[in-house]
Amino acid sequence: MRTLTLPELAQKLREGDNYVILTHRRPDGDTVGCAAALCRGLRSLGKRATVLENEQFTEKFRPYLCGLTDANVPENVCFVAVDVAAEEQFFDAAKCYVNQVTYLIDHHGSNSGYAAQGVVEGETAACAEIVLRLLLQLQVEITPQIAEALYVAISTDTGCFRFSNTTAETLRAAAFCKEHGADTFAINQVMFLTKRIARLKLESFLTETTEFYADGAVAVSAITPEIRSELGITEDDIDDISGFGREIAGVQIAVMLRQEGDSGKISVRTSPRFDASAICAALGGGGHRAAAGATVAGGIAAAKVAVLRAISDMGVVL
Amino acid sequence: MRTLTLPELAQKLREGDNYVILTHRRPDGDTVGCAAALCRGLRSLGKRATVLENEQFTEKFRPYLCGLTDANVPENVCFVAVDVAAEEQFFDAAKCYVNQVTYLIDHHGSNSGYAAQGVVEGETAACAEIVLRLLLQLQVEITPQIAEALYVAISTDTGCFRFSNTTAETLRAAAFCKEHGADTFAINQVMFLTKRIARLKLESFLTETTEFYADGAVAVSAITPEIRSELGITEDDIDDISGFGREIAGVQIAVMLRQEGDSGKISVRTSPRFDASAICAALGGGGHRAAAGATVAGGIAAAKVAVLRAISDMGVVL
Repeated sequence: MRTLTLPELAQKLREGDNYVILTHRRPDGDTVGCAAALCRGLRSLGKRATVLENEQFTEKFRPYLCGLTDANVPENVCFVAVDVAAEEQFFDAAKCYVNQVTYLIDHHGSNSGYAAQGVVEGETAACAEIVLRLLLQLQVEITPQIAEALYVAISTDTGCFRFSNTTAETLRAAAFCKEHGADTFAINQVMFLTKRIARLKLESFLTETTEFYADGAVAVSAITPEIRSELGITEDDIDDISGFGREIAGVQIAVMLRQEGDSGKISVRTSPRFDASAICAALGGGGHRAAAGATVAGGIAAAKVAVLRAISDMGVVL
Repeated sequence: MRTLTLPELAQKLREGDNYVILTHRRPDGDTVGCAAALCRGLRSLGKRATVLENEQFTEKFRPYLCGLTDANVPENVCFVAVDVAAEEQFFDAAKCYVNQVTYLIDHHGSNSGYAAQGVVEGETAACAEIVLRLLLQLQVEITPQIAEALYVAISTDTGCFRFSNTTAETLRAAAFCKEHGADTFAINQVMFLTKRIARLKLESFLTETTEFYADGAVAVSAITPEIRSELGITEDDIDDISGFGREIAGVQIAVMLRQEGDSGKISVRTSPRFDASAICAALGGGGHRAAAGATVAGGIAAAKVAVLRAISDMGVVL
């Protein structure tokens, strides 16, 4: 992949037309917000632009995509991927276009470089911070709708500025969005200040059932298919549930286990002292130092045995 | 009270010496952070300055006051109150100095003007934003310690930028603190990302016992003395618990009841459609539109009857 500067990418987007924007599987606020903001920005410049319909878009983020999505891909389009780290991260309907992506914009330092050209900034908290700078470079007028899409992306990717990836630039970008008409409190209410009672009941279940090891430094929680169906838990209810155990005082390594078909899905969150990606790599997975994941055969019970062994192998006395 | 501009207050502080800083009862991050930042700033200018020891300072905020507090008040001091809205808001040991306060710095629009002179900005999210501008006006070098005290104040008074009081200036002030050495993530972890298991168990209790009225628009929760003592709940565990019911999807009016001696303490949190202060005024209390409180005789049971009647009297069909 040829690395572009932001002015170079802006110049190329200005010269081209007919853009289709691609998002990642299990879409989060950052990929959705980047897609919506970029699409609106390109349209404001008179370009044809659309966001390829992703069957996994959830209720929480859909309002920001109103009137922007399309399930069809016309001829002679230019694909742009936002916040997509690697080929296998595309959603199913987008996978056939992976080799046709012209531009990628991403903030994963591990980006595999699947596009012809792109901008990757591994230190930027939210991909939307890059998109904001790109839109300013393109001299797009930042409307309230664009500002809201960007704010959704920036706030959700940083846990509303609580997580360690938050920088001074992140906070300034949020200030900019607010000044350009984003109703940030309305967004915060939906994203951070409202829980369905089903979610609260799931947290009660986790509080009662989480197991602790190593004098409380390791917490292992599990969301069983039974409790999911009993409480009617949706994806929006649990999009951030992997961090549950990490927020308990004293916990250094938090494990969340879920059933996915016949497999056990493992999410690991760690304090800076421990490397989640090393634990998950031992189980065939991967990720970042503070947050990583793996999937093993045999469901929750097998996953629990496997992840406890991996943690023990790292020298933690359970 | 004579209203000062910030440059005027800065000039007066520069001319004087021997400052004793006063905080409010049930001290929160804003009053503590303002006191610590102002005290350090004045000391850096060669002034004698101290924060009057407040017996209610909790473990969570105490680290920011290390080496700054004193329980004694020397002769010929100049009292400065930070984030204290009215005479009755001073902590017990400070009440005898209320009539001697020379300067107040506050962001409560309702400030009673108990000082000789002062700066009040009712629209500013955290009092610390005013203190930051004051310190810059005083040409104080913002050290990491000062930046951290300010960040504690700004972040806690806005729920880490989630609440409706957050402005673009708030976010920029936080960015400034980060750039000046505040370890914002370490602070966020303590203030927003860590709960003791006792707190989680209290949330489970509240999830199971909260009562709903008016098709789920009204939630009434109660923390009984029994559950407090059973779980070993501290003030730090519940400093933000009044907002519990308000975060449940669909809830417009959330009530939290607590026993305080023989009385029932009522906290009300409302969505913009309802006026918490009107509900509490009917019970002899007061506060803001979104958050208010009252205390009634007779404990939790009596408080529940009283607050439900007050809500019903506002036209809500329970």
